[in-house]
Amino acid sequence: MVEGSKSVQELLDAAFDVVLLAATSGFLEANAVRLRRCRGEIVEVTGRELESVGEYRTNSGALAVARMRDAGELMPGTQEYALALDNIQDPGNLGTIIRTADWYGISRIIASEDTADMYNGKVIQASMGSFTRVSVHYTDLPAFLSGYSGPVMGAFLDGADVHGMVFPPGGIVVIGNEGNGISPAVEKLITHRITIPRYGQAESLNAGMAAGIILDNIRRAGSPR
Amino acid sequence: MVEGSKSVQELLDAAFDVVLLAATSGFLEANAVRLRRCRGEIVEVTGRELESVGEYRTNSGALAVARMRDAGELMPGTQEYALALDNIQDPGNLGTIIRTADWYGISRIIASEDTADMYNGKVIQASMGSFTRVSVHYTDLPAFLSGYSGPVMGAFLDGADVHGMVFPPGGIVVIGNEGNGISPAVEKLITHRITIPRYGQAESLNAGMAAGIILDNIRRAGSPR
Repeated sequence: MVEGSKSVQELLDAAFDVVLLAATSGFLEANAVRLRRCRGEIVEVTGRELESVGEYRTNSGALAVARMRDAGELMPGTQEYALALDNIQDPGNLGTIIRTADWYGISRIIASEDTADMYNGKVIQASMGSFTRVSVHYTDLPAFLSGYSGPVMGAFLDGADVHGMVFPPGGIVVIGNEGNGISPAVEKLITHRITIPRYGQAESLNAGMAAGIILDNIRRAGSPR
Repeated sequence: MVEGSKSVQELLDAAFDVVLLAATSGFLEANAVRLRRCRGEIVEVTGRELESVGEYRTNSGALAVARMRDAGELMPGTQEYALALDNIQDPGNLGTIIRTADWYGISRIIASEDTADMYNGKVIQASMGSFTRVSVHYTDLPAFLSGYSGPVMGAFLDGADVHGMVFPPGGIVVIGNEGNGISPAVEKLITHRITIPRYGQAESLNAGMAAGIILDNIRRAGSPR
């Protein structure tokens, strides 16, 4: 279920199979062209009706129910960067990671089976429409990484300074659990230990924040300090 | 009110005036040295009692009530970086921003009066103890910035590439509201428009994420690509 005008617009623009769309007359008028390709049932409702059904109270021009999509091919190409999520639990974190991946041109996320569900309403909400462009594959993460031959990077306190690294042309960046970091089974498969330098006193960075900062460093790189 | 062993330990270590500490026997034993400087009332409770009082169910070895602290001197020094928050609404975002500021050695945040309350339980929780080291001053933000003579930076779509910038030795980085960005009154006072380059298709980055990425670029800098 996807809520809010903006997210529903992104859903309609992407190749999702929309089963039901409930929207205000304002939304239906403003999105007439978009709606032509919608094969599902379209129901006009009032803003108040929407609010009574949805999980969120704001941004409620529309609500849609769509079929989950097959995440497609699992293995990233050799010139491609992908993220691997090792038990990310917080739906807001997962949504922010999907949004940030989309900003940095990452279209594939491989998630451990215990990672939060990408179709959770809070994940969809926090991803701000990016869930339509980034595929999330749930799988046995250590088994998957064992079969991947490219660089596998992970953030640790004793790794190479991310500001000084020359990054390879492709690879997988592993993001660890919010409380426990990268699990021992996954840590064994890391080929590049990296560190985001700390200039103050916080003990760690939020998992999503670390992901974004590493991606920013990868995309600017080929050019160490 | 501060919940969870880790955050309460940080509170006891910092110069906060703790009025009441409710903790399990395990916490009291493990933190005996720390507790010597606690002037407040100390009550031993069971884990179950803690859970019934607190807002969160996990990490519940202790709960403390402390006096809010005077944020001290408002104006940053000329060689110092500070953050300015222009109507940050989400408590989780605010907590993450405080934690990230602490990681990057920022000890002062100036917040518009409509920014979320730093003493909100969710802010304290998301800051992971960093609220004890980073002061948040609430004030009329445009008026404050009008009286500040250093560089005022803000993220916009048409700014200078943050990857190529030579940053000044100090300044204020303005972070805009989650939905609306930087307000017109504050935008007028921006002296350096900066842009985080986008490599994919997301429309924007989360406000906290943008703050973290800009701080990472500032701290690594003096060394453009």
